[in-house]
Amino acid sequence: MGKALLHTPEGVRDVYGKECSKKLVLENKVSNVFKLHGFHHIQTPTFEFFDIFSKEKGSVPSKDLYKFFDREGNTLVLRPDVTPSIARSVAKYYMDEVVPIKVCYNSNTYINNSELQGKLKETTQMGCELIGDNSVDANAEVIVTTIEALKASGLKEFLVEIGQVDFFKGLVEECGISEEDEVTLIDYVTSKNFFGVEDFLSKLGLSEEKAKAFIKLPSLFGQSEVLEKAKSLTSNEKSLHAVEKLEKLYSILDEYGLTDYVSFDLGMIGNFNYYTGMIFKAYTYGTGDAIVTGGRYDKLLAQFGKDTAAIGFAIYIDNLLFALNSQRVDVEDDSAFELIIYEADQRSKAISMAQELRKNGVAVELVLKTDNITVDEYVDFKKSEGAVKCTYLK
Amino acid sequence: MGKALLHTPEGVRDVYGKECSKKLVLENKVSNVFKLHGFHHIQTPTFEFFDIFSKEKGSVPSKDLYKFFDREGNTLVLRPDVTPSIARSVAKYYMDEVVPIKVCYNSNTYINNSELQGKLKETTQMGCELIGDNSVDANAEVIVTTIEALKASGLKEFLVEIGQVDFFKGLVEECGISEEDEVTLIDYVTSKNFFGVEDFLSKLGLSEEKAKAFIKLPSLFGQSEVLEKAKSLTSNEKSLHAVEKLEKLYSILDEYGLTDYVSFDLGMIGNFNYYTGMIFKAYTYGTGDAIVTGGRYDKLLAQFGKDTAAIGFAIYIDNLLFALNSQRVDVEDDSAFELIIYEADQRSKAISMAQELRKNGVAVELVLKTDNITVDEYVDFKKSEGAVKCTYLK
Repeated sequence: MGKALLHTPEGVRDVYGKECSKKLVLENKVSNVFKLHGFHHIQTPTFEFFDIFSKEKGSVPSKDLYKFFDREGNTLVLRPDVTPSIARSVAKYYMDEVVPIKVCYNSNTYINNSELQGKLKETTQMGCELIGDNSVDANAEVIVTTIEALKASGLKEFLVEIGQVDFFKGLVEECGISEEDEVTLIDYVTSKNFFGVEDFLSKLGLSEEKAKAFIKLPSLFGQSEVLEKAKSLTSNEKSLHAVEKLEKLYSILDEYGLTDYVSFDLGMIGNFNYYTGMIFKAYTYGTGDAIVTGGRYDKLLAQFGKDTAAIGFAIYIDNLLFALNSQRVDVEDDSAFELIIYEADQRSKAISMAQELRKNGVAVELVLKTDNITVDEYVDFKKSEGAVKCTYLK
Repeated sequence: MGKALLHTPEGVRDVYGKECSKKLVLENKVSNVFKLHGFHHIQTPTFEFFDIFSKEKGSVPSKDLYKFFDREGNTLVLRPDVTPSIARSVAKYYMDEVVPIKVCYNSNTYINNSELQGKLKETTQMGCELIGDNSVDANAEVIVTTIEALKASGLKEFLVEIGQVDFFKGLVEECGISEEDEVTLIDYVTSKNFFGVEDFLSKLGLSEEKAKAFIKLPSLFGQSEVLEKAKSLTSNEKSLHAVEKLEKLYSILDEYGLTDYVSFDLGMIGNFNYYTGMIFKAYTYGTGDAIVTGGRYDKLLAQFGKDTAAIGFAIYIDNLLFALNSQRVDVEDDSAFELIIYEADQRSKAISMAQELRKNGVAVELVLKTDNITVDEYVDFKKSEGAVKCTYLK
């Protein structure tokens, strides 16, 4: 037996003890918020045909997918993301349904990202998808669900940063920028490289007036005043309409009293090919990575034959749990139990005690005292596992 | 877009709508029973190094494993079974711990079994493992947990059939039967082929006296009187001790008032290399497959460097759900919600209503009325999804 046999592959891990209990309690809370907002759970297979996660449908490059073969030689992929699977299943089961569908999930996802040292390759995502409703009200419902789920997790300080890719798309169309140049521009904007944007636009020969909006893009983040500023920078209809939708969203969130949790970032462009309107990410202290990503993907379902709008988000449960721990938020666990250790001749009494307690919802570990373990050894270890009371029947 | 894109690979499936809700409610009930009996959740990775599931450690043949490679060329395997992963993790985190460890899990497992038409390749297993306790009391605790979990699921009629591989092993040792002949004999016994057993033993030249126990083996199933009968058939210490342990188990189960749910089957031998003492399976009407399998595997942890006893079981959630449905047991779902459809000018009122209801724990789907969908269309579809009340604010 080599020690190597005790290891898990790099990037995957065991979750056990109180950490696991906390994770499950957290998942329950999030799931409850999803339910309160009218989302219904769906479970899709852990692996699907490669086509489901091909370039146009997913946000994960093919090289980072875990691929293998079935007996017929088809390429199967461990899902890197749940959204394409849900798009497929909603198209399959609700092809002709006109009424919006609301589904949610709690699923592990798998990304074979070797270059990013220390990143988990198997992570738990909990998310919602609202399919068949292109209204700003639907956008609001999804943002509200996100905020309420994060609040329910115990997180106090977090921010949902909201962007709108149509603002950028409008500017690009207005200026007749080529697809190739667009990609370069996106790089500068998303890295908030102001000088890079300016340099690149002057090379493209854009008028100062037209360049202005792009140059200001990386700075268009903050509270709702950003929206006013954005409108003053352009007159193209697409961009203006995008901002107006964010204004309407803001007013709906105001009805909910949740505007303190949001900010806007018109320089947020995300996966440009995938998202089609509002996009958002949530951040908190203690982890540099987003704890939520989401947005509209109105083109995805058409790829499965159902041409309908869609919006959704995923909460990265591992990141969220990590952030809660590093912020020292007291995440509940439900590991509390009572320990009953009994000598063989006290078995009947021990069983009656345990039955009575369990009937009343108290978790009980019942264990026969053995010669080679002292009562103190039992008690010490079981207290570390969550024992709140220890009884020795001798 | 081909229709093929809507399909999932053979043997895996989507679980959605009320079926998913029922599955999650069922899982919660089972998980609660595990908790009440002092088991703590653990999550192991979906895939591990091939070695973890190699022949000596798992019950699934290598050809039926889903295998793929990591970037370093190591062979990874989707877990076909959770027990080897738990043996690894308990050895890893509790190598020197002498106190028994109680863990449970809710995990999907993956078996690439092409020949068995219609069998699911991805299934949900919920199970418990009690590690470091070789007492009959531990056996009883595991059987009690199994029975209580099945009762909590709503199942009324089921039977936990209990065997003891040491009874058979004792007979084999007593008669000096070779390993090769043992394998043949196991085949006859497990298929309850009485004549086959008799023929084979006479070929081996066993005395009538010694052959008698083997010949009777396939008929040694039923209530506790089977144990008396078994003892009368042999005088070897190993076999007798095996039966005595079952008698003791029976008396403990009697203390719990649960003997109606068990029967004995000394002809049940199971995976002979894997199990080391008591083994059991639970059956019910409506599915020919076992809904639970379990037993002692006292040799497994030694393969991970921790030489300690272990016993556990897995409930096959998909089989259990299938049985509950075919027995028309009313499995609860928690899909009930209220639908609020509102015209744009009623938004504020709709939001207040929804907030109030959600605050009181009522699930609400809030949707803006759109021109292309009638209220009746909303209501009809959402009722099928679980809407118990529909309000239209116009």
